[in-house]
Amino acid sequence: MKKILFFLPLFSVLLHAQNKDEQTLSTIYKTALTNSKCYSWLDDLSNKVGSRLSGSEGAAKGVAYTKQQLESLGLDKVYLQEVMVPKWVRGEKETAYILDKKTKTIVPICALGGSIATPKSGITAEVIEVKSIKELETLGVDKIKGKIVFYNRPMEPENIETGKSYGNCVDQRYAGAKEAAKFGAVATIVRSMNLRLDDFPHTGAQSYGDLPKSQYIPTAAISTNGAELLSKKLKENSRLQFFMKQSCQHYDDVLSYNVIGEIKGSEHPEKIMVVGGHLDSWDLADGSHDDGAGCVQSMSVLEIFKKINYKPKNTIRVVLFMNEENGGNGGKKYEEVAKNTNENHIFALESDSGGFSPRGFSFECDDANFTKITNWKPLFEPYLIHSFVKGGTGADINPLTSKKIVKAGLKPDSQRYFDHHHAANDTFDAVNKRELELGAATMASLMYLFDQYGID
Amino acid sequence: MKKILFFLPLFSVLLHAQNKDEQTLSTIYKTALTNSKCYSWLDDLSNKVGSRLSGSEGAAKGVAYTKQQLESLGLDKVYLQEVMVPKWVRGEKETAYILDKKTKTIVPICALGGSIATPKSGITAEVIEVKSIKELETLGVDKIKGKIVFYNRPMEPENIETGKSYGNCVDQRYAGAKEAAKFGAVATIVRSMNLRLDDFPHTGAQSYGDLPKSQYIPTAAISTNGAELLSKKLKENSRLQFFMKQSCQHYDDVLSYNVIGEIKGSEHPEKIMVVGGHLDSWDLADGSHDDGAGCVQSMSVLEIFKKINYKPKNTIRVVLFMNEENGGNGGKKYEEVAKNTNENHIFALESDSGGFSPRGFSFECDDANFTKITNWKPLFEPYLIHSFVKGGTGADINPLTSKKIVKAGLKPDSQRYFDHHHAANDTFDAVNKRELELGAATMASLMYLFDQYGID
Repeated sequence: MKKILFFLPLFSVLLHAQNKDEQTLSTIYKTALTNSKCYSWLDDLSNKVGSRLSGSEGAAKGVAYTKQQLESLGLDKVYLQEVMVPKWVRGEKETAYILDKKTKTIVPICALGGSIATPKSGITAEVIEVKSIKELETLGVDKIKGKIVFYNRPMEPENIETGKSYGNCVDQRYAGAKEAAKFGAVATIVRSMNLRLDDFPHTGAQSYGDLPKSQYIPTAAISTNGAELLSKKLKENSRLQFFMKQSCQHYDDVLSYNVIGEIKGSEHPEKIMVVGGHLDSWDLADGSHDDGAGCVQSMSVLEIFKKINYKPKNTIRVVLFMNEENGGNGGKKYEEVAKNTNENHIFALESDSGGFSPRGFSFECDDANFTKITNWKPLFEPYLIHSFVKGGTGADINPLTSKKIVKAGLKPDSQRYFDHHHAANDTFDAVNKRELELGAATMASLMYLFDQYGID
Repeated sequence: MKKILFFLPLFSVLLHAQNKDEQTLSTIYKTALTNSKCYSWLDDLSNKVGSRLSGSEGAAKGVAYTKQQLESLGLDKVYLQEVMVPKWVRGEKETAYILDKKTKTIVPICALGGSIATPKSGITAEVIEVKSIKELETLGVDKIKGKIVFYNRPMEPENIETGKSYGNCVDQRYAGAKEAAKFGAVATIVRSMNLRLDDFPHTGAQSYGDLPKSQYIPTAAISTNGAELLSKKLKENSRLQFFMKQSCQHYDDVLSYNVIGEIKGSEHPEKIMVVGGHLDSWDLADGSHDDGAGCVQSMSVLEIFKKINYKPKNTIRVVLFMNEENGGNGGKKYEEVAKNTNENHIFALESDSGGFSPRGFSFECDDANFTKITNWKPLFEPYLIHSFVKGGTGADINPLTSKKIVKAGLKPDSQRYFDHHHAANDTFDAVNKRELELGAATMASLMYLFDQYGID
């Protein structure tokens, strides 16, 4: 009896905390779903600002727009952080066709980010189809020299998490040109990183690595339907020719910015919790999912805290990173400054997997913290948030190296992500208001719990 | 030591069963994602057959198409079950406008299923806006007589499960006309059951109940944007007028069919496990989500079992029910026949919540069975299926009354469902191939486990 009485106060405190947390999460979700600017911000960012490739006018507009919106929230501080970014410009729309016994069949392609242009008159050459970079070695210079290498390994449909299939495929896009150049290829085309069969070519970063500039070759993505067609036609006639023309260009690096806003912590202003996404997008669309969604959700975390009058113990900072897509300079610069000024980051959360129904989080932390965080799962159950796993979190928060930092990435439903990723259909209409808002609420809930109960 | 040895064989058996089940589920999911007809069936059903309102030519085509496809699967039996269904025809596209100080503003409406027509010249009347049926009583006959009652209680955005918001709202659509007629209203218009603001009016069943025919009044849905506009204009001018015209008509009941296919059970052919959806749709679109998705997923359960060469112990029967939308006669007929022939149904699973990413199931069963089923949850974890709850399952399997039957409903992500439900945008392009296939795999997995381990 004594024992029971002894434990009662502690039990009562825990129960009180649990009820308080349940109540707070309920208020957060309700605010996100009924009274948040999240969706209208995305509308503006997508439809008024538009695409935001690093160094573009759109990116500059995006900086100005989000800074202005953060200023309207009554935060303690809103500022820009200078960062130099690459400037790559697509130029004229690319053209490509299959030339098979004098029949031209136009196929949709787009230059990969960072690619060089073709000669003005384009490139016409025979095509050699491969399923991997490794296959180049088997084929050797004799079979590759003077040809266009066509990488056509599809994303695996059988993985439940589509990000896994992307990871298993993207080397073709990122390093395909560099490797094919070593075997004398004159260009490469890569099957779009898309699980669906459609007519959208998907761009994305590629790198020539340490290849001498004189050896650079043009590289482009072809739509999945285009890839299927080309592969079929190659089976019928391995000597067919492919024409491609693109006029993309590299310029000198230009000045751009990370956009930052913060609410000062009431107890530990020196401890910083970051929430963010990346403000830059590819140029083919307005990047509503990648990563307009992550930006407005991150802004909304601070919006919600202000609206429900939650005063965080630690400093909550939203960071809209510049240049995730083709360089990652925003994330690197942010870490550089944080290190130089001895800032103490205890937590970082990134949303960069699209504005789809949230399912959970991935975490980078030690086991003790993971166990602690996992204990919060029941609080998320009413909101159908169920997946807490260890794993990669976000490219922009990746450089952060504070000693005891816990990192997290929002995990939305991944099934439709690669239908839109880096393609012309990554547009506002592809984002559902409620799914976007539920993501923001889920992020705000994790930020709240972390702010309350910290790390071990 | 002895004790441990004693338990080892049982432990080993359980472990073996678990591994076998893990393996089977893995094979089921892989088959669904790489080698299923599910999506191409839906393409045909949506784009070749089209809308399938009970009694329509489309419904008849749907019966013929699905029967033929089931026949191609090599099942033990495929047949049609006769069922009489109502025939209601929309007729000419409806027109409506707000007439405010001689300015006409056209708004999108559609007749509710089962509504009568307006006079040929339409109806013009003042409008009284209410938020509930109950409010009619407060207003009384004086304020309602001769007017159009405008039901404008929106779906609540704050509920996580959108079905809950639908349930809290749909009385306005289903019984609104009947109740308003009692107060002398000349017609009703109902805010569409849609969480999004857009221009699609959403139809759906309504009933005059036991109202004398002479008192029937026309009733229509108005798009959510239209409802917002009308409400705003009413605040400015409560005497504005509304014009509506619709020419829908009732005909005598016609003969239609449930489409049924089955694999005979190898051990208990007399025990029947049903999986199904409803083949009829509303007439405004092809009903890809409601419930083309449920039909092709159910067909795919049997397709997958055939492809992986799984021979069920119990009889597995797919039933594509006719007339869920405006009568439920297919479900009632199926139960009537089952009862008359003393069939023993042990399990029924319906998919009628759209072809979105599956999240879990709802179950109607006793606690012992629910506990047993819940123990299967870990097997579903790799597929992100996490929500096993008690609750309503499906309108078509609802009439089934076998003594010991367990019923289940597939629960897909619900956020986007009411963007499309009963509206002109419930079309094939709104369904994602992978999400649809994951639903089929999830259903097949539950059917498999139930077939293996039965009920208590």
